Amino acid sequence: MASEPVHADHQRGKRNGIPEAVLAINKSDENLVKAVTKLLEHHSVIVTKLTEAQVRHIKSEFKEAIMNTQGGTAIIGGPWDHDVGRCTIVTAGTSDIPIAEEAASTLEYFGIEPVRAYDKGVAGLHRSTSIVEMLNADPGMGVIVIAGMEGALPSHIATQVKQPVIAVPTSVGYGSNFEGLSALLGMLNSCVPGISVVNIDNGFGAACAVYRAMKTYGSV
Amino acid sequence: MASEPVHADHQRGKRNGIPEAVLAINKSDENLVKAVTKLLEHHSVIVTKLTEAQVRHIKSEFKEAIMNTQGGTAIIGGPWDHDVGRCTIVTAGTSDIPIAEEAASTLEYFGIEPVRAYDKGVAGLHRSTSIVEMLNADPGMGVIVIAGMEGALPSHIATQVKQPVIAVPTSVGYGSNFEGLSALLGMLNSCVPGISVVNIDNGFGAACAVYRAMKTYGSV
Amino acid sequence: MASEPVHADHQRGKRNGIPEAVLAINKSDENLVKAVTKLLEHHSVIVTKLTEAQVRHIKSEFKEAIMNTQGGTAIIGGPWDHDVGRCTIVTAGTSDIPIAEEAASTLEYFGIEPVRAYDKGVAGLHRSTSIVEMLNADPGMGVIVIAGMEGALPSHIATQVKQPVIAVPTSVGYGSNFEGLSALLGMLNSCVPGISVVNIDNGFGAACAVYRAMKTYGSV
Amino acid sequence: MASEPVHADHQRGKRNGIPEAVLAINKSDENLVKAVTKLLEHHSVIVTKLTEAQVRHIKSEFKEAIMNTQGGTAIIGGPWDHDVGRCTIVTAGTSDIPIAEEAASTLEYFGIEPVRAYDKGVAGLHRSTSIVEMLNADPGMGVIVIAGMEGALPSHIATQVKQPVIAVPTSVGYGSNFEGLSALLGMLNSCVPGISVVNIDNGFGAACAVYRAMKTYGSV
Amino acid sequence: MASEPVHADHQRGKRNGIPEAVLAINKSDENLVKAVTKLLEHHSVIVTKLTEAQVRHIKSEFKEAIMNTQGGTAIIGGPWDHDVGRCTIVTAGTSDIPIAEEAASTLEYFGIEPVRAYDKGVAGLHRSTSIVEMLNADPGMGVIVIAGMEGALPSHIATQVKQPVIAVPTSVGYGSNFEGLSALLGMLNSCVPGISVVNIDNGFGAACAVYRAMKTYGSV
Amino acid sequence: MASEPVHADHQRGKRNGIPEAVLAINKSDENLVKAVTKLLEHHSVIVTKLTEAQVRHIKSEFKEAIMNTQGGTAIIGGPWDHDVGRCTIVTAGTSDIPIAEEAASTLEYFGIEPVRAYDKGVAGLHRSTSIVEMLNADPGMGVIVIAGMEGALPSHIATQVKQPVIAVPTSVGYGSNFEGLSALLGMLNSCVPGISVVNIDNGFGAACAVYRAMKTYGSV
Amino acid sequence: MASEPVHADHQRGKRNGIPEAVLAINKSDENLVKAVTKLLEHHSVIVTKLTEAQVRHIKSEFKEAIMNTQGGTAIIGGPWDHDVGRCTIVTAGTSDIPIAEEAASTLEYFGIEPVRAYDKGVAGLHRSTSIVEMLNADPGMGVIVIAGMEGALPSHIATQVKQPVIAVPTSVGYGSNFEGLSALLGMLNSCVPGISVVNIDNGFGAACAVYRAMKTYGSV
Amino acid sequence: MASEPVHADHQRGKRNGIPEAVLAINKSDENLVKAVTKLLEHHSVIVTKLTEAQVRHIKSEFKEAIMNTQGGTAIIGGPWDHDVGRCTIVTAGTSDIPIAEEAASTLEYFGIEPVRAYDKGVAGLHRSTSIVEMLNADPGMGVIVIAGMEGALPSHIATQVKQPVIAVPTSVGYGSNFEGLSALLGMLNSCVPGISVVNIDNGFGAACAVYRAMKTYGSV
Repeated sequence: MASEPVHADHQRGKRNGIPEAVLAINKSDENLVKAVTKLLEHHSVIVTKLTEAQVRHIKSEFKEAIMNTQGGTAIIGGPWDHDVGRCTIVTAGTSDIPIAEEAASTLEYFGIEPVRAYDKGVAGLHRSTSIVEMLNADPGMGVIVIAGMEGALPSHIATQVKQPVIAVPTSVGYGSNFEGLSALLGMLNSCVPGISVVNIDNGFGAACAVYRAMKTYGSV
Repeated sequence: MASEPVHADHQRGKRNGIPEAVLAINKSDENLVKAVTKLLEHHSVIVTKLTEAQVRHIKSEFKEAIMNTQGGTAIIGGPWDHDVGRCTIVTAGTSDIPIAEEAASTLEYFGIEPVRAYDKGVAGLHRSTSIVEMLNADPGMGVIVIAGMEGALPSHIATQVKQPVIAVPTSVGYGSNFEGLSALLGMLNSCVPGISVVNIDNGFGAACAVYRAMKTYGSV
Repeated sequence: MASEPVHADHQRGKRNGIPEAVLAINKSDENLVKAVTKLLEHHSVIVTKLTEAQVRHIKSEFKEAIMNTQGGTAIIGGPWDHDVGRCTIVTAGTSDIPIAEEAASTLEYFGIEPVRAYDKGVAGLHRSTSIVEMLNADPGMGVIVIAGMEGALPSHIATQVKQPVIAVPTSVGYGSNFEGLSALLGMLNSCVPGISVVNIDNGFGAACAVYRAMKTYGSV
Repeated sequence: MASEPVHADHQRGKRNGIPEAVLAINKSDENLVKAVTKLLEHHSVIVTKLTEAQVRHIKSEFKEAIMNTQGGTAIIGGPWDHDVGRCTIVTAGTSDIPIAEEAASTLEYFGIEPVRAYDKGVAGLHRSTSIVEMLNADPGMGVIVIAGMEGALPSHIATQVKQPVIAVPTSVGYGSNFEGLSALLGMLNSCVPGISVVNIDNGFGAACAVYRAMKTYGSV
Repeated sequence: MASEPVHADHQRGKRNGIPEAVLAINKSDENLVKAVTKLLEHHSVIVTKLTEAQVRHIKSEFKEAIMNTQGGTAIIGGPWDHDVGRCTIVTAGTSDIPIAEEAASTLEYFGIEPVRAYDKGVAGLHRSTSIVEMLNADPGMGVIVIAGMEGALPSHIATQVKQPVIAVPTSVGYGSNFEGLSALLGMLNSCVPGISVVNIDNGFGAACAVYRAMKTYGSV
Repeated sequence: MASEPVHADHQRGKRNGIPEAVLAINKSDENLVKAVTKLLEHHSVIVTKLTEAQVRHIKSEFKEAIMNTQGGTAIIGGPWDHDVGRCTIVTAGTSDIPIAEEAASTLEYFGIEPVRAYDKGVAGLHRSTSIVEMLNADPGMGVIVIAGMEGALPSHIATQVKQPVIAVPTSVGYGSNFEGLSALLGMLNSCVPGISVVNIDNGFGAACAVYRAMKTYGSV
Repeated sequence: MASEPVHADHQRGKRNGIPEAVLAINKSDENLVKAVTKLLEHHSVIVTKLTEAQVRHIKSEFKEAIMNTQGGTAIIGGPWDHDVGRCTIVTAGTSDIPIAEEAASTLEYFGIEPVRAYDKGVAGLHRSTSIVEMLNADPGMGVIVIAGMEGALPSHIATQVKQPVIAVPTSVGYGSNFEGLSALLGMLNSCVPGISVVNIDNGFGAACAVYRAMKTYGSV
Repeated sequence: MASEPVHADHQRGKRNGIPEAVLAINKSDENLVKAVTKLLEHHSVIVTKLTEAQVRHIKSEFKEAIMNTQGGTAIIGGPWDHDVGRCTIVTAGTSDIPIAEEAASTLEYFGIEPVRAYDKGVAGLHRSTSIVEMLNADPGMGVIVIAGMEGALPSHIATQVKQPVIAVPTSVGYGSNFEGLSALLGMLNSCVPGISVVNIDNGFGAACAVYRAMKTYGSV
């Protein structure tokens, strides 16, 4: 059988600052372990979108793995970076927490301390007051805002703080939510400038965007 | 040519409280005047979605018409009802004003006093504070909230007041707004209960919903 | 781990008249019980979108809970309000009944007596005659109309009664129904003014809209 | 230049009963005349979707053409068939009349007498009573039902008559009508069996379906 | 509990020729039996969209039921009509057979003899030659054409026969088929006039349309 | 003003065989001429999607340009390649001809002789017989099939010939055609294997695919 | 029961070069075996989209079958053709491998040697360098490029090689991937000319397109 | 007429760092001037999405305005901030330049020096090499990547640099581009982590996101 070997991209971290990660979706236990093992030869690894069964398998195979069961993530081989900064993760509801924990894990992998601020949706506006105060008090802190349904929370936060808001729409909701479409469109059409958006349920991507920004502009 | 005569539905007002209105879209000047004239034999008439040219034609044909140029409406033969109540119309931006004026005109036709509160979008949260105070101070007042883009304003108002919020998405915006789809989905998926939604750009329908509610529950 | 505490919004009922409810979707039994318990310290609670298994768990944990198995709801700690009014719930088919029962439960929580009128779809027009007569005979009564497929029933009812019609599209149907999209678009584009629409399958939201309207305009 | 000659399909009428027609959209005046002339060598011709300017051009080129300006159609060379039957064309509103006239013209071309019943939408249910009575009194009569917005009229008619209902959604409406999508989906998802649907704004196709049915089953 | 009784619409058959049918989707065994039993007091009944488990239950409850397992249908109490005509059912592939059998069963209920012609898709054009010949030889025969994927078969048949073609898109396919959308749009946009379309996977509706047409025009 | 110079990619032809072309959409006359002039220094140029006004401008600026007014293309500086082969271009209707002429021009630019076979849609199946015979008689000939509406012609041709069919959906049609979506989905879901599809209205891209295939496999 | 016999289209291979294949989706084990057995009387057979259970059943029924478990395919009766050429299959990620293996199997059935080059996505641009070199070194080799998510890899390859690129979007991804829609649209809108696209997840169709092209142009 | 005064939100700049801007879409000349004048009392102003006619009007009213005709922007009253940093703006094609210039103008308003790098699309990969080198050489520089069609350029850049990439999809393209949808989905589904996306054609928003990031993280 003619074939090019599948090889991991272990130079990626040098090139763009973010090492190759493992997306667990549709991967067999065997392939998952193989992918992690190969990358571990070169650098520490983060795995995302693990099912509960996959979490158990990773845990049994890599004893030192730091698991985040709610977020469906595993960090193996320690963090990739250290002491980069702090970043608040705000969610609209409690159902958004798995995506928030995916982001939190990823931040930790990049050496950014996550500050969790969950269930602060626009149905209870006052609940986000302390978050806004914290962000205004610490102007170098990052912020990720995560919401499903109508996705209004990023606008609400962004109009009160100076940070760039990374918005994560989630598939939380039902009916005309259409698996996150309503939150995605809401965030893209925000009337508050300074919000940028990642894919639906992409907590990992949001943390990567924050990491790149902190490294790029914090190093000036 | 075999044909059933086209006849206006002049009993409608008796049946469901709202007399037949004239939607001007795609109507020739001649047909517009004919439709109004026929209905005028039975009751006063409101015309909606008039273009500027149609506004001029209606004005020249019906001297007593009360025109709302911005809203694209005309009321001919006086209001349909009197002293029904008051209703605030809130818009997120100035571009939503034409739809707001369509709603205002319709309210006036139904004997409801419109209170205009324009350009109060979530980009400037504090701008809606006085509106919320007014609505809390006058608990029998109605409220219509009109917004394009992400359509977040209805949630923002509804979480602070006790009134039922009639939300009107508008086609204001560009790009992934998709002609009002983002605002429509945002409003339908609001996490604040007690909001109900009418068609994109349907200021007339919002006012009708308020009128029906005031007549139904105010009469108890 | 740096973190803001998750806290229930127990002031919401004072602010906008509707206390925080619990949406059971994707909640573990443990989190469900925790959420209810926390809110119960401040006010009675309604839980919606319970699966059958969740219904059993809630029942076993909160002995006094009033369960509505068909509607997937639970009321714990008694109703939130009393003697607010009466509201008819009309459905097009029998498959819409779970959403109707969600609405009925919610109305009961708000002290509104639900009058069930199920399976009155436009395929059998005469079946809705008695509903129309009842609504005309009791002009202060509210009405919620629930339909899947083409969603034509709200127009049919609204043209014959004076009440504001709260329309609930359901995901009942198949093929080009596209999970409720056809019913949703049908209701939004109704040619009968005075209908407003909530999210697909949102019986809870419809009841909240009726409650707000009765409290707002009935108090004048 | 190597090329196959473009030739009209003048055998089509023999094969499937419906001769080739000319769709005027995007055709230059010259090509329009050429297409008609070529087909006229073999059989009489119907042209559809003519703009006003194209109507004038056809009129000036083919003196004997029977024009339907509202419907945007022309019949040249007389009807294709004779004494086939009668068919009612019902529209929901007056804005649907151009599509209805396209259907009426086409019926006339096929030797079917059109009976026009316009502006009978569900907002005024009683207006369609006489139509229903006529259809019940003449059980061999065909029926085409044309509606925009929510497209509810076909269901309303079909539940009261025994005829097969050919439903034509139109692009009449605005906002979430999405150029006729709401009417199309509404008709496809009708809960009344015995309705079949043609393309948005396709009055011609509806008449062809009726003609085929009358020829096929009327000849038994 | 205030409530209107749910009652079957047993007059429907007299009104529009088609008695109320039972759609099994989401119905419990108990409710299914109840619905059938109630209607059986007045007329024979057809049940559609039965799962395999529902088929077994119906079979055990109604010994005389004529089951069509592939089509997911049951006829209880004998046919509704007799000796109405014959109708060919053409499918593009073998995966469309369940929908075809649903149509076949429904035709039998209405006293129309179904002639099955399966797996005649456009990938093997010659396979439909004998179908076309049969339809041309028996001009009073009806025809239903069922296809998934690109839904091209109705055009292919319709251009060669004089019958009105009732087209049924199916959800057969994958990828950009989008659950039948590609077949649905293909059929609606056919360049062959005289095709009309029912909902995706609606074999029942197609048969009803044929029955209405045969009764209406065959009786002249 | 800090800026990187805009420079044409004149090495592209060497790299992937197809030199950079100029897409005229939204280009001013001045920029159009500038873009062509720059590329002409290195190789002959094809311009596509020219409006009628742009055609005139190009003609006046580049006297030697070979214009295809119907196709909206211009070739300046002679063909890019010679004697590569022959390719038939089939269209379903006459309205597809502009896209077909865009493809024809592009083929000529690449030294492929286009053989035009227009207006061969599935409404007149026999019209494509001679095309099929020609393709079977010349098995090295390429074929591009262009269709709007339901886009069924590529399947029809592909099942009768051995060539790879490059299918071009066009935006020809109206209503649920949705600007070419129905033709696009139809072609992608074809049940005949061996069809591949380019963007809606992309005659240029289809010709490029044929050119690449002829050069790649013809050189073996 | 009146019925046309279902018969396989065993002449298809003679007509268009590609014998009828068996698509396993929704087929029972019994029907699957029956379909294969019938075709085997005339020619060797390829079966696609087999589930794991179906793979086992085919294996047990046809001992000589060559199974590709990852690709969900089976070849029974040996290849259809021999020594036709070589074709590289490039995938963006490891999750695209099942579709790639479906293509590889199909190529083998057609006598084309597949060269696998997996996990070469644009996140690691350098990983595709050797692929580009191989394709440039062997200009008669075919290429299929398979990608999910944003589907950018075909553009990336196509701009560096002279081969016609057959692009296969996959449903790999989540969120606004919308089951492969993002990859499909990305590939159709590529700015690199010479790419043509097959249905989402259609590895079989891509191989058929390559086979047709090699046979057509390689025979000149 | 009861009404709340429309008032500009001149405190916004203090709150979230970005002063209120004027979006010119659908604004009359008079309202445009009024909006600018009111804001000018408090701070300098940027106007976006100006048509050519609006550009002329603004120019004549505000002599000191710095106009960007291509970008449709005006800056009146000088920049809002100074010496904040540098940011590269990369576009895929020349048609994306208007959106790029909107971004450039906005950057200048915020005191960020824009470095233009236009027409670097993936069809000519080597053209972006110097951009990548520049970004790697100046790790504190920001980057905005703008592309229409398949929107592949952000992935291509992001995998080679360490900066956070702000991606702007444009409506450049035709056919299945669907007004920018293909580019938007492509960017959201990028397999390169660290990209975040703003609305289609939103050059202004991209610049605001960069400004917020530079101010937030550059101040640490």
